[in-house]
Amino acid sequence: MATTRAEFGSFFPKFLDDLLSELPSFEATPAMVERLKTMFTYTVDGGKMNRGMSVVDTVKIVRGESELPADVNTKAMVLGWAVEWLQAFFLVADDIMDESPTRRGQPAWYRTAGVGTVAINDSFIIEAAIYRLLKKYFRDDPCYVDLLESFHEASYQTELGQMVDLLTAPENDVNLDRFSIEKHSYIVTYKTAFYSFYLPVVLALLMTGTRADSPVLAVARDILIPLGVYFQVQDDYLDCYGHPDVIGKVGTDIEDNKCSWLIVQALDRVTPEQRQILADNYGRKSPAEHALRVKQVYNDLDLDAVYKAYEDETIAELQAKISNVDNNAVPQAVFTAFLNKVAKRTK
Amino acid sequence: MATTRAEFGSFFPKFLDDLLSELPSFEATPAMVERLKTMFTYTVDGGKMNRGMSVVDTVKIVRGESELPADVNTKAMVLGWAVEWLQAFFLVADDIMDESPTRRGQPAWYRTAGVGTVAINDSFIIEAAIYRLLKKYFRDDPCYVDLLESFHEASYQTELGQMVDLLTAPENDVNLDRFSIEKHSYIVTYKTAFYSFYLPVVLALLMTGTRADSPVLAVARDILIPLGVYFQVQDDYLDCYGHPDVIGKVGTDIEDNKCSWLIVQALDRVTPEQRQILADNYGRKSPAEHALRVKQVYNDLDLDAVYKAYEDETIAELQAKISNVDNNAVPQAVFTAFLNKVAKRTK
Repeated sequence: MATTRAEFGSFFPKFLDDLLSELPSFEATPAMVERLKTMFTYTVDGGKMNRGMSVVDTVKIVRGESELPADVNTKAMVLGWAVEWLQAFFLVADDIMDESPTRRGQPAWYRTAGVGTVAINDSFIIEAAIYRLLKKYFRDDPCYVDLLESFHEASYQTELGQMVDLLTAPENDVNLDRFSIEKHSYIVTYKTAFYSFYLPVVLALLMTGTRADSPVLAVARDILIPLGVYFQVQDDYLDCYGHPDVIGKVGTDIEDNKCSWLIVQALDRVTPEQRQILADNYGRKSPAEHALRVKQVYNDLDLDAVYKAYEDETIAELQAKISNVDNNAVPQAVFTAFLNKVAKRTK
Repeated sequence: MATTRAEFGSFFPKFLDDLLSELPSFEATPAMVERLKTMFTYTVDGGKMNRGMSVVDTVKIVRGESELPADVNTKAMVLGWAVEWLQAFFLVADDIMDESPTRRGQPAWYRTAGVGTVAINDSFIIEAAIYRLLKKYFRDDPCYVDLLESFHEASYQTELGQMVDLLTAPENDVNLDRFSIEKHSYIVTYKTAFYSFYLPVVLALLMTGTRADSPVLAVARDILIPLGVYFQVQDDYLDCYGHPDVIGKVGTDIEDNKCSWLIVQALDRVTPEQRQILADNYGRKSPAEHALRVKQVYNDLDLDAVYKAYEDETIAELQAKISNVDNNAVPQAVFTAFLNKVAKRTK
């Protein structure tokens, strides 16, 4: 049975306590412990936890068990939560760089009282916590080095993707020439897909005995990276075409000058006149007419249909790839579990 | 023979090239490679390199060789430069958090054209480079895991020290009650001494066969942490009492509201009237009279003599500790080399 949000969430206090209870060995004062507790809780807990839960679910599928033995379950939870800690490391810093006011329905951490740019150092501490948890639970495990390297590599990939994202759409500098399908693909692959889709499965596979040099990892990558790209394309699509009541927010990718899948598809199809309209109206925060004119071009180009075709084609390709996976090497269900969660989602 | 600045520096291009030449495996474009080359060169190269060189020198002393075999020398250089990369990771971020205008005589990286808060992500990439270099040169070495853990732990220690530093002296909020000798000791031990003094020796010892659980590491820590604290106390002292022509800068610790060794020593000795003068004048950027009034209190308390006494006592204690080191476990020269560089320095 897939892990529930409640079960997964119930492990957060345990791992938080692991981190806090070793702080005396770093000569931390009670005030430091209290601050770190507040900081970790605010930044790491309270997300959707899909990435973390997918580690645990993958371990269950690979082992063919609907319930894991307690020790294995704890280790899977550690890796799942380590991915959540990794995500918090990125998000705390991203919010500063993007000047985002909110995160998960509350002020972004750097915007809370007395924090500000201290949040940069906090993001480092969040990252460091990953390696404290791995050391505590996996120090004597044969996969320990491979786990460390997996986190190092996924971090580097994400940071490279973030670099391209930041340089492609700098603040207050709209230039559609910098946008391209290739750039979009790089950003979503590196900034999102590696750590959100590939990393959780790699961790689950390593934990269950797959070696780091196994061809199984290449198979996983060949499916999960395109799946992660598809997930991000959906995000881009729903930002404009999703219903605010369903997706839980009003999309602002156009106003924010984002290198979205929609704008790169539009640029690939526009007339010179339409391109001029996009150049004049993309990336303007106000008035709202700017974004509406961009959306009109999207509609004139029938991007809704372009997306639907992309979606059907991508799902078919992924299904074909999955059906070719040798079930003896890794259960196809590992990948269908992901695909079923992502395909045709509307929120 | 101790490694020269020229020899140590000559390895930077090699390790930079290692990082850049593997970027195609991360699908990096030539523009990405060019930007990373610029960023690494600006942020990592051009420092005093004392920390990095001390790794190489320690390896030479431990092996009892004035010149290292080429393969050993390269590995020692990797570890030395990894410490320099670690320092750059911290400094790039510290400069943002401290709003420092300059670093090493040129604009701080975040203040250069087109960078800004993107420098936060750049600092992450600088950190990631450490683990790329370690993987390339030490993947098959028995000390690999211990090296990874040493960098993880030194990073965490430094980040905890930085957290206390930032919370002890927040921007525009002067409150001498937050300063104490204990706070100062924590900050300099964690923010500076671990990564600057203990880490280089740990890396050299691990590389030359010392095991991570060896009592030798505790001996090294017991000497190098106080030595690192002494080094930082000197820094604090010279900021106020050093000659600008000799130390190469005009000290601003008083104006910057720093939790300096001098202010905590002063607070330990003041009359209520003197404390009021400090409270009224510490941490004010202008006019210059504020800092002069603080310095007058320092002089009235004869902190110069307090420092001289601390210095003599500390050197004597360190010499005594070093003389007790079992030369068969680790050469005393490892520590005297450090002490001789630090003791009685005036710049």
